[in-house]
Amino acid sequence: MTPFLHVPVDILRAQIAMILRAWGMPEDQCEQTTEALVTADLLGIDSHGLALLPLYEEIRRSGKLVIAPDIRVVRDVGAVALVDGGGGFGEAPATRAMDLATAKAATLGIGAVAVRNSNHYGAAGVYALRAAERGFIGISTSATFNTAVVPTFGKVPMLGTNPFAFAAPARRNPPFLLDMATSTVAIGKVKLALMAGQKLPDGWVMTKDGSWQHDPATALLDRLLTPLGGDRLHGGHKGYGLAVMAEILSTVLAGGSFTPLRAPDADRFNVGHCLIALNPRLFRDDGGFEDDLDAMLDALRATPPVDPARPVMTAGDPEHANRAERGRSGIPVPRKLAQAILGLCESARADYLLGQ
Amino acid sequence: MTPFLHVPVDILRAQIAMILRAWGMPEDQCEQTTEALVTADLLGIDSHGLALLPLYEEIRRSGKLVIAPDIRVVRDVGAVALVDGGGGFGEAPATRAMDLATAKAATLGIGAVAVRNSNHYGAAGVYALRAAERGFIGISTSATFNTAVVPTFGKVPMLGTNPFAFAAPARRNPPFLLDMATSTVAIGKVKLALMAGQKLPDGWVMTKDGSWQHDPATALLDRLLTPLGGDRLHGGHKGYGLAVMAEILSTVLAGGSFTPLRAPDADRFNVGHCLIALNPRLFRDDGGFEDDLDAMLDALRATPPVDPARPVMTAGDPEHANRAERGRSGIPVPRKLAQAILGLCESARADYLLGQ
Repeated sequence: MTPFLHVPVDILRAQIAMILRAWGMPEDQCEQTTEALVTADLLGIDSHGLALLPLYEEIRRSGKLVIAPDIRVVRDVGAVALVDGGGGFGEAPATRAMDLATAKAATLGIGAVAVRNSNHYGAAGVYALRAAERGFIGISTSATFNTAVVPTFGKVPMLGTNPFAFAAPARRNPPFLLDMATSTVAIGKVKLALMAGQKLPDGWVMTKDGSWQHDPATALLDRLLTPLGGDRLHGGHKGYGLAVMAEILSTVLAGGSFTPLRAPDADRFNVGHCLIALNPRLFRDDGGFEDDLDAMLDALRATPPVDPARPVMTAGDPEHANRAERGRSGIPVPRKLAQAILGLCESARADYLLGQ
Repeated sequence: MTPFLHVPVDILRAQIAMILRAWGMPEDQCEQTTEALVTADLLGIDSHGLALLPLYEEIRRSGKLVIAPDIRVVRDVGAVALVDGGGGFGEAPATRAMDLATAKAATLGIGAVAVRNSNHYGAAGVYALRAAERGFIGISTSATFNTAVVPTFGKVPMLGTNPFAFAAPARRNPPFLLDMATSTVAIGKVKLALMAGQKLPDGWVMTKDGSWQHDPATALLDRLLTPLGGDRLHGGHKGYGLAVMAEILSTVLAGGSFTPLRAPDADRFNVGHCLIALNPRLFRDDGGFEDDLDAMLDALRATPPVDPARPVMTAGDPEHANRAERGRSGIPVPRKLAQAILGLCESARADYLLGQ
């Protein structure tokens, strides 16, 4: 038996939508949420597509999530706005926020929309890419509902793996797409090491006494991931600063809740996001931006490599290659995940579509 | 003889202005440039204050710099604008661009101003801090006129140490201020190691065959600094992505020149910058942002430290402490730098004020 099912995109889309609908999510939000998760799976961001549903089930059952939220634009002035997510999952309000940001950028050159009272929003890059595919530079960042990253010199996690994504449209090339956790590695990398029975390298995760954690199981319990860079000597204070930047733009700007200061009995997680779009056509003559970006991406890929078998790439190259390949041959779904989805379908009374 | 002169701020300011004026810089640009360099020195960003003048002399003598440029706003639509630096140093157009961005953000909530046809603009953080001190979130990023950073998997430098800065205003606390090169370390750190006779640690700089460079002298010749994170295993592809982001926002958005593609006989360096301001008061009720940022910064500093002698800080803490201390006891200027400034004064026929 192969370890993966290969699920056609349309089946994956139908399966995700069916579960969300069975949970009671309104149809328009269901579509936006499904699209965000399917896009992540197509791009190869496997931890942030279908694989999120078991976590979403946990969040849903926490009693702190509104499955059919009232998503509202509560402020809208000039080039900025504030969206209230109504206590639901983050994909629908983040999609709406990015679309509002690009609408503002279309006429004003830039738009920024903050989202409060939200939750996990899937992959940050999905929204940045959405803007880039419409001709805009897109920026997407979010806080998280839990902590996993330790400040430089500290020994307690205070920040999430706060993602930051940036995308920009070229003409010949698919969009540049940087989608990163502000930690050295995302939690998913530690989980992969655990499943593969591998030790963690220096620099990824700390122990409680400030040395390097090599055991992935303990790493997942302690949640002491380093910010991008690792220790102070290797620039970890910069990753720490970027994580705080993400938190300021997401939590503080929107009026969200900073995890270490959230009341334990708060009835919502109140996660915040921030979506920004820039319109290159208001800075330069039509096409100048896209042409110059093409030239730059081409030049970067042509950098002589250390190892000819590992050519230089630009951010987004692996994701776009995944999308082309997976659009043809389907999304590889580990059988263990398919099993978990079957369980979700049974408890939600939704049809199971992924196959055996 | 002590290795440092301690120069009062007013003397430092007068000295820098005197040299720039002697070079022929117009009075208003002279004031803005001086202020940017003095602020960097006050904050302790020693490589980007007075110490820049010998480099600026080299740039000036390259024949590719306009010392009295015509700085113009060439586009101004809605919340964005494009400034042409006229081929001069970057401090004056960047200051003007950030002030224009904050003016736009005051009414529209956000403003973004790109600068083209510019040059070295000093410390990125100076402009972000300028916005934060006026109540705005400030973002400042720039390309550079030369390359020093190698893309992940590559063996040739293709990017500058492209700086990125982010500042945000609190109420009780001085502004949060992240000011970072997108490389693991800035060039200045390698120079410091050379002067101190120290070897470089793994992760900072590569050799031409893709291993770690430990010799600072060779490192300064080869200019193969790693992007933030170091190698691929430790997230260096994220730092590479951030460096490209800085280049897209600075070079591609403004219509600047990407160093590897710049014609060797180009008559200007055409460096670009991007300055963005966000107005928290249009997202939240007055004071909500500043109060929540205070609470977050306080909570982060209260993180239990690994070593009680090294408490957890937030970005900007060391800089604000430097500013307070240096405002009182003067700027420490290495005698070797003072000697170089004396040489500049003699060749420019400017008075030398720093003392012996």
